Amino acid sequence: MTLAQAEKVIAVAKAAAVKQGTLMNIAVVDAGGNLKAFARMDGAFLGSIDVSIKKAKTARMFNMSSKEFGDLAQPGEPLYGIEVTNGGLAVFGGGQLIRDKSGTIIDAIGVSGSSVEDDMATAEAGANGL
Amino acid sequence: MTLAQAEKVIAVAKAAAVKQGTLMNIAVVDAGGNLKAFARMDGAFLGSIDVSIKKAKTARMFNMSSKEFGDLAQPGEPLYGIEVTNGGLAVFGGGQLIRDKSGTIIDAIGVSGSSVEDDMATAEAGANGL
Amino acid sequence: MTLAQAEKVIAVAKAAAVKQGTLMNIAVVDAGGNLKAFARMDGAFLGSIDVSIKKAKTARMFNMSSKEFGDLAQPGEPLYGIEVTNGGLAVFGGGQLIRDKSGTIIDAIGVSGSSVEDDMATAEAGANGL
Amino acid sequence: MTLAQAEKVIAVAKAAAVKQGTLMNIAVVDAGGNLKAFARMDGAFLGSIDVSIKKAKTARMFNMSSKEFGDLAQPGEPLYGIEVTNGGLAVFGGGQLIRDKSGTIIDAIGVSGSSVEDDMATAEAGANGL
Repeated sequence: MTLAQAEKVIAVAKAAAVKQGTLMNIAVVDAGGNLKAFARMDGAFLGSIDVSIKKAKTARMFNMSSKEFGDLAQPGEPLYGIEVTNGGLAVFGGGQLIRDKSGTIIDAIGVSGSSVEDDMATAEAGANGL
Repeated sequence: MTLAQAEKVIAVAKAAAVKQGTLMNIAVVDAGGNLKAFARMDGAFLGSIDVSIKKAKTARMFNMSSKEFGDLAQPGEPLYGIEVTNGGLAVFGGGQLIRDKSGTIIDAIGVSGSSVEDDMATAEAGANGL
Repeated sequence: MTLAQAEKVIAVAKAAAVKQGTLMNIAVVDAGGNLKAFARMDGAFLGSIDVSIKKAKTARMFNMSSKEFGDLAQPGEPLYGIEVTNGGLAVFGGGQLIRDKSGTIIDAIGVSGSSVEDDMATAEAGANGL
Repeated sequence: MTLAQAEKVIAVAKAAAVKQGTLMNIAVVDAGGNLKAFARMDGAFLGSIDVSIKKAKTARMFNMSSKEFGDLAQPGEPLYGIEVTNGGLAVFGGGQLIRDKSGTIIDAIGVSGSSVEDDMATAEAGANGL
């Protein structure tokens, strides 16, 4: 994953947020889980800086969307409490894996700033943007 | 517990994971709760590095499996919320005590990388490997 | 400071790095010291992600360049040891304030990835890019 | 870098430590800076668990040995104070990059447990073990 690709992912996600009428923090991490690019739209939540980065990292760290991962972390579910590991994980939607045409995971996007549904839709738009 | 023993525990757990068809992170901590040996199988979750170590530490810190400990940490149970102490605990299965023939606790193993059931089965295989 | 301005600062800094032949991590924080935009050039140091963000924050937190701040933090100087506060500060060059035409501080840029001299030159290019 | 390769690096480093008459903690991180394998020899310092891991990460994060990096972090040197970034870096010898035959960095080894000179010699033995 190149910086040019990460910037394209962010641009596509940002356009989706504008269309949605939301203000988003958008983070892209590489295959090693390290931050590659980030943008906070004007007026977006300050608290979502960290959340968006954690969503992207969570998706990459467990190779599933943060929504799927979060479903396993609910009270009564097998991974209840796992959010305190790894310096803090995001156990709700908005983190999405990005794969190349062969299906290999190349990085992940995390979006935070509106309802979880909006965050997920924006993240998916970004993930499909390449 | 010697390093040779810890490496044997990891080798047995790894063989169990291969048989299971899973990709595991496997950690062994000593009687003091300090990391003794660790291995991440190729392709295993990055997020499970920390989870596997925390599972082993949790078992040793409270002298019970992380599953038994986790049962006490569920909503409504006596230790609800305890996972935020000690820099983060693992309150679900996959951390297992290792005892010598006299029953004395000599260390603990933590396994993370698949379903909690798979993690527990692999950890038990490793714990019985000595 | 808008996201468009932050992205322009990053683009100018990136162009300066390309001209320099260096691979940089570039972070922009807003007037509140919170991350606004970030880019890691392909092949740039992983350790410079955090360093570039800390440089920008340090500049904004004390309203001087991280070089000027760092001079005060040397052994024997008045702020010796201050780098362990605030979750870690950067006490060397590469963090630069950005001011609007009236001289008001609107944000800060942090650059990390090469020698401190290169980092400072790139940060200055970015800071003057608006 | 496979787990088999990481285990070979550790085995070679361990043999070098035995020859040296030292007790070492040995960590290997992958190209993303994430822990791949770890071993603590019987009787080795507990405090060196974290140090060995940080040495390996530091080498990979800045693509140089932790000794070369540490030389830049001494009082009066350009990166003085950088050890407080990235959750703590090791700014002394014992962290070494591992390259494949084409020169590409594939991971890094960190060794801690004796004098810095001994640590460096053991790390180099491990790095050349592949």
